[in-house]
Amino acid sequence: MLNVAIVGPGLVGGALLEQLAAHAQSPRFASLPISVVGLINSKKMAISTKSFTAQDLDQWKTAILGSSAVVADLSQFTDSLAVLKGSTAVVDCTSSDTIAELYPLWLSKGLHVVTPNKKGFSNDISLFRKIQQLSASPKGPVVYHEATVGAGLPILSTLNDLVRTGDKIVKIEGIFSGTLSYLFNNFSIPGATQKFSECVSVAKSSGYTEPDPRDDLNGMDVARKVTILGRVAGLDLSIDTLPVENIVPEELRGVSSAEEFMSRLPEFDEHFKKLNDEALASGSVLRYVGMVDGVNSQSSVKLARYARDHPFASLKGSDNIIAFTTERFPNPLIIQGAGAGAAVTAFGIFADLIKVCERFGTGSA
Amino acid sequence: MLNVAIVGPGLVGGALLEQLAAHAQSPRFASLPISVVGLINSKKMAISTKSFTAQDLDQWKTAILGSSAVVADLSQFTDSLAVLKGSTAVVDCTSSDTIAELYPLWLSKGLHVVTPNKKGFSNDISLFRKIQQLSASPKGPVVYHEATVGAGLPILSTLNDLVRTGDKIVKIEGIFSGTLSYLFNNFSIPGATQKFSECVSVAKSSGYTEPDPRDDLNGMDVARKVTILGRVAGLDLSIDTLPVENIVPEELRGVSSAEEFMSRLPEFDEHFKKLNDEALASGSVLRYVGMVDGVNSQSSVKLARYARDHPFASLKGSDNIIAFTTERFPNPLIIQGAGAGAAVTAFGIFADLIKVCERFGTGSA
Repeated sequence: MLNVAIVGPGLVGGALLEQLAAHAQSPRFASLPISVVGLINSKKMAISTKSFTAQDLDQWKTAILGSSAVVADLSQFTDSLAVLKGSTAVVDCTSSDTIAELYPLWLSKGLHVVTPNKKGFSNDISLFRKIQQLSASPKGPVVYHEATVGAGLPILSTLNDLVRTGDKIVKIEGIFSGTLSYLFNNFSIPGATQKFSECVSVAKSSGYTEPDPRDDLNGMDVARKVTILGRVAGLDLSIDTLPVENIVPEELRGVSSAEEFMSRLPEFDEHFKKLNDEALASGSVLRYVGMVDGVNSQSSVKLARYARDHPFASLKGSDNIIAFTTERFPNPLIIQGAGAGAAVTAFGIFADLIKVCERFGTGSA
Repeated sequence: MLNVAIVGPGLVGGALLEQLAAHAQSPRFASLPISVVGLINSKKMAISTKSFTAQDLDQWKTAILGSSAVVADLSQFTDSLAVLKGSTAVVDCTSSDTIAELYPLWLSKGLHVVTPNKKGFSNDISLFRKIQQLSASPKGPVVYHEATVGAGLPILSTLNDLVRTGDKIVKIEGIFSGTLSYLFNNFSIPGATQKFSECVSVAKSSGYTEPDPRDDLNGMDVARKVTILGRVAGLDLSIDTLPVENIVPEELRGVSSAEEFMSRLPEFDEHFKKLNDEALASGSVLRYVGMVDGVNSQSSVKLARYARDHPFASLKGSDNIIAFTTERFPNPLIIQGAGAGAAVTAFGIFADLIKVCERFGTGSA
């Protein structure tokens, strides 16, 4: 049995709980038993040696939201998990720096960590190294974070396989933001007539952007993903030194509200139109990409042009795409698909949990 | 330490030995120690408790080809592996039915099986079920066969993740033959002028086809891959009942030699030109695809048309491509890249071996 505790059971954590509840009723449960034993959010927590699964999916909601739930205390939560029998994985569904800083503590107590939270792997390299070191023992606890890049797409597992089998990474290039994918797939195609600000506006009202779209357009989310990919590939990347093209017009970076930003964005439609027209005139399209350079240390995040027959040019919707160019794959190995959303992110976490279960959770509980 | 024994160390096995030898000299070896302890081909064999790795890559050649090597005896080979300390994986690099029939014996003796050989998973379903059953125990031996479909591309691992986490497979569609990919990528593009027989001839002389190209054009290799994908997805597919479009013209199926086939193929150029012209006139291209239908049991292998902006239409060279349409991925999850060749096939095997090592090989030897 693998015990699972979820930190921050919101949208993604909720989807994960649903998938786990369905799993608990499937015939596969017998060989890969996973059981939810703890839940904590910023206010309340619940921990139990009796697991929350299967028939009683709603039980966790009651447990954590109900009047009988106790006040959240991460240190007490951690201690309770550490004394459970069998293997236990903590699933961090927050995007919190503070929670990410707890990974070394959890690992040192023998708790596995599975998470879509990018912070532990893209903040200061010393935290990343500590996490790596504490999860390096063949028999010790592990950290799996497939869903930090491309949600459930098999990106980090593939990169890990390439690296561990000795392939040489030449270049990793991709469209890693669902928002920026959606924006440029709609704005930069031959014959499209929508203005850039209109595209942003549609994306915002369709729920594709952060509440303030500048949090997408500044490229920092992509920079974190490039940093993670680079580090997994063995490079010492840092979001502080990585060249990142912020496509928020300089004049709008300081405006105080998202509303003001949106209302002034049309002033810059001409700027984006010019970039787009130039790209289209040269038979290309604009795409906002992240790139890990395994050879010349020229990793970057930027708006770039791709020829119309390039796989990045035919991307649709808000899909992510990644191309690994390596010694063994001079024509790149490409993976594409939905890289954001609760169900596919939960899928990435769940697949990681099954790997933890296979390695550590098949003993007696 | 994970002990590895290789059956049929030819082109793929040789590439695997090279990758393993490089690994033995890398810092990663410490946490994932893999050691080659046995080799057997159809004539000779060598087995040793002292491993063949690292500095002495050539040692295996001497061991198995040298005058001191003993006559191959699979039963003796198996018995010697079964008594080794620690975990042992047999890597079947043949394409033999007979060797595949040994998997149940190997598994029953606690030996793991890793292989690019499609036979064990696409021959009679009773063999597949026996293999599945004997590798189902959470602590028992495992069978990994990533390289049976798309060589090192992460196809079966992704399908497994989808299935095991409870996603519903709607459709799996792809171009699974490097040869047929190459043929139609060159023959069926707007503006191409090469005749079909010329494309086959170029593919043959470039080494892309089997010695007799009919072994590619009859679709049986693709049918085996579709059968494997379907079975991993939980369907009872069989190569005997799967509808497979054999594109070898009927009149040429009975001719005795590859030479005669090649010399008479131009008689059918008009037939292929007509199919191609019709596809191109409708804004599509021809691609030879395999399809697993998870909903309506209409799985098949056939020559089909794809619109020019479909990812299959922009495929290049001899790349494979696969699209998983599922409940969670209504816009398919797509993987593409080299799906054949010694180095990438060996990579797929090696990545599987690392997974076996992580799960079973990290104890004391």
